[in-house]
Amino acid sequence: MNHPAVLKRLRKTLPSGCLITEGAALKPYETDALTAIREIPWAVALPETEEQVREVLAICREHEVPVVPRGAGTGLSGGARPVRDGLVLGLSKLNRILEVDLENCVARVQPGVRNLAVSEAAAPHGLYYAPDPSSQLACSIGGNVAENSGGVHCLKYGLTVNNVVGLRVLTMDGQTLNLGGKGFDYPGYDLMALMCGSEGLLGVVTEITVRLLPNPPGKLVLLAAFRSLAEAGQAVTDIIRQGIVPAGLEMMDELAIQATEDFAQAGYPRDAAAILLCELDGAEVELDALEAAVEPVLEGNGAYDIQRARDPERQARLWSGRKAAFPAMGRLSPDYYCMDGTIPRRALADVLTGISDLSREYGLAVANVFHAGDGNLHPLILFDANREGELERAERLGGRILELCVAAGGTVTGEHGVGVEKLDQMCAQFGPEELAQFERVKDAFDPARLLNPGKGIPRPARCVELGGMHVHEGKLPFAGLERL
Amino acid sequence: MNHPAVLKRLRKTLPSGCLITEGAALKPYETDALTAIREIPWAVALPETEEQVREVLAICREHEVPVVPRGAGTGLSGGARPVRDGLVLGLSKLNRILEVDLENCVARVQPGVRNLAVSEAAAPHGLYYAPDPSSQLACSIGGNVAENSGGVHCLKYGLTVNNVVGLRVLTMDGQTLNLGGKGFDYPGYDLMALMCGSEGLLGVVTEITVRLLPNPPGKLVLLAAFRSLAEAGQAVTDIIRQGIVPAGLEMMDELAIQATEDFAQAGYPRDAAAILLCELDGAEVELDALEAAVEPVLEGNGAYDIQRARDPERQARLWSGRKAAFPAMGRLSPDYYCMDGTIPRRALADVLTGISDLSREYGLAVANVFHAGDGNLHPLILFDANREGELERAERLGGRILELCVAAGGTVTGEHGVGVEKLDQMCAQFGPEELAQFERVKDAFDPARLLNPGKGIPRPARCVELGGMHVHEGKLPFAGLERL
Repeated sequence: MNHPAVLKRLRKTLPSGCLITEGAALKPYETDALTAIREIPWAVALPETEEQVREVLAICREHEVPVVPRGAGTGLSGGARPVRDGLVLGLSKLNRILEVDLENCVARVQPGVRNLAVSEAAAPHGLYYAPDPSSQLACSIGGNVAENSGGVHCLKYGLTVNNVVGLRVLTMDGQTLNLGGKGFDYPGYDLMALMCGSEGLLGVVTEITVRLLPNPPGKLVLLAAFRSLAEAGQAVTDIIRQGIVPAGLEMMDELAIQATEDFAQAGYPRDAAAILLCELDGAEVELDALEAAVEPVLEGNGAYDIQRARDPERQARLWSGRKAAFPAMGRLSPDYYCMDGTIPRRALADVLTGISDLSREYGLAVANVFHAGDGNLHPLILFDANREGELERAERLGGRILELCVAAGGTVTGEHGVGVEKLDQMCAQFGPEELAQFERVKDAFDPARLLNPGKGIPRPARCVELGGMHVHEGKLPFAGLERL
Repeated sequence: MNHPAVLKRLRKTLPSGCLITEGAALKPYETDALTAIREIPWAVALPETEEQVREVLAICREHEVPVVPRGAGTGLSGGARPVRDGLVLGLSKLNRILEVDLENCVARVQPGVRNLAVSEAAAPHGLYYAPDPSSQLACSIGGNVAENSGGVHCLKYGLTVNNVVGLRVLTMDGQTLNLGGKGFDYPGYDLMALMCGSEGLLGVVTEITVRLLPNPPGKLVLLAAFRSLAEAGQAVTDIIRQGIVPAGLEMMDELAIQATEDFAQAGYPRDAAAILLCELDGAEVELDALEAAVEPVLEGNGAYDIQRARDPERQARLWSGRKAAFPAMGRLSPDYYCMDGTIPRRALADVLTGISDLSREYGLAVANVFHAGDGNLHPLILFDANREGELERAERLGGRILELCVAAGGTVTGEHGVGVEKLDQMCAQFGPEELAQFERVKDAFDPARLLNPGKGIPRPARCVELGGMHVHEGKLPFAGLERL
């Protein structure tokens, strides 16, 4: 790569202040929220228009410069980690809300718009954007599309892919794709769904049309305490089996309860082995009916303490513990590593027991705070990076936990993406035939492999080196997982 | 192609009676439900196991024989129309329900299982499979995946893609892909969504895992009569704007009302310019709340006659007219041509006026019976195939109607697929860049282009010949569509 020539062209294309090439100013871009992995990029481009994005891509294509698209840098799996000889393509300046269309209940936004800003723009009209990752104050809609983000309410309202109706995409080889739109169900291959969760490997999204939902007229939050994780897990299965879809259904285990009570004093019962937080939404009469249906299920599964909140203030207090769970871990341990796997709901108790066994084996405590309704676990591995070898042990334990999820018929990531973090676990998730097909799909969009190289999909050779980790639906036993 | 050698190998692979090669027996396979287009295939294979499917594909790959996958043959766009020198791969004998998993609320089935059979198998457990195309008694789940089928209830419960959680796929080049599963959200590119609606062009589905939903505890059906289509259309927009998601929300225009009343005597008001059928589901108290919310919206938009049905018998009567709408057309006209386009809801009144103008221009009556809630139109063009040129006129009118949908920001198909029928209209839906990207995706799965050739996606050259029909979001005016 002829660096000076490329820089000259980029400088000509981008407005002043929109190209960063020098030491200290590059520093903020060396990592996303997976801070353990850092790399200083060659340069950072911050285009202000779609046309500038197109030109930047053309220059990089011509000079074979790798491009790492970046949203707000809140990703937890290193999807926006720079490449040493590559350009970071930051989309934060494409931050305009282009249209709020009230008749069709959609908003058309640029990728750099913050998640919460969409709901704020829709709020005067009684509408909101449903996916609510916990980083929603900071994270961008473009990043949400790249990672197919979820959140507490995705049990009822779906992931990003279920709430996006249209995308405008620039491919690395210069095509502009208009995918989906305001109509219902588009013909042709569903490239819009394919783009969601593709972690910036297939194209750069320059415009997103999202569905807006009317604010629910009322909410009810229930907190239920259980004497065992198995009871709480069964209650989750039974609630959903009844056809009730809570807006959110979260579980916390004993360690998580203790830590958050110390930190946030949300009023959680300290003697519980597990608590469930169940948010129901709808009109008042619906809430009455839902409460009447849910409470017997909780009690029937051994809930010994049920708290109810209909007023927003009390609801906020019940949620405060859950929302403070991650920072609360700082009281227990200098560092934590947040995992993100999913499992079929019925495997909940078995997998939590398995995690507890692994926790003992590796000598590291694990707290569990997670989206129980959709089987999306977030085990928090506590460690101290200053102690020799603990980070590596935490990473190995994390890998084992994810493999446990796969062995139970689940996945190595629910909503945080693969990025660079879970490339090895993808070898457990998929066999060589799926991985080869992923490569062919990549080639159909970016044959020169310039877009976000080394992320998302492991090269089949990497998995071969790891030695046949693949299991399918738990059919091949993993060491120690025979019970599943 | 060396026919005798291929036949010999196929005969060796398939059980007796599972290979059809001779005249009269081939006849049932010459068309699907788009009966205007027929072709006798070279041969029909009816494998009984996935292994036989794999071997049939291998033989065809080796000998370069085109393969047309076929479900139950109920498709309305010709997606299963045979290719003269090709093999029809009928999947009707892969018809086992492999598993009903009550804890995870999913069923694992083979592609030849009928849509309704899934709900029948789940019924003893109070569960059902939501997508309900009107052919659900006969159509197969495999065909539903190929066409991403919808139905009356997809407004609330989604299309096939929203109700399938896992697929097992054989590609033409011999790969087996396990996509998705019982967990929540899988990593890697979303090839499962990509397969849904790909009309058999990317692979052959041999196993499908579908989500089962608990039966709703109660239902309420409302019928509302309006003096104009515009009023009924506005009522649809307003209901959804309130955050109410009916299980179904259907509209019929004057001609459709008259025809079905003559035929089915459902008790529809004959003096109405439009009726809405609105099905709400939930517990009794929820139904009370929903009724209290919906009725003022209907009245506020000019509904002058509202009928309510809570008991199943009366509900069935109200639905009987809608369900008989297509056969009822037989009283008005010897033939009809059912179109399938979608539009943003707010364009409803404008597009219906446009269809009425086109109907006059072409001298053919058009009745409208459609899924109003999701803007999925089904204009029924009435014609007499025995009259010189009327079929061709109906087809041209149909094409104009679909182009009108695209110009309004909608699509050329909601749930019936593109097949062979709508290849030309795809040139209005997409520009050359999207079409070229579709080609590259096809090449990533089936580079020899043996799977269902000539369907789903037009060659870019075809669109160039038609002369630049593409419009995007109605920005380029079509002749006569300036109002949109």
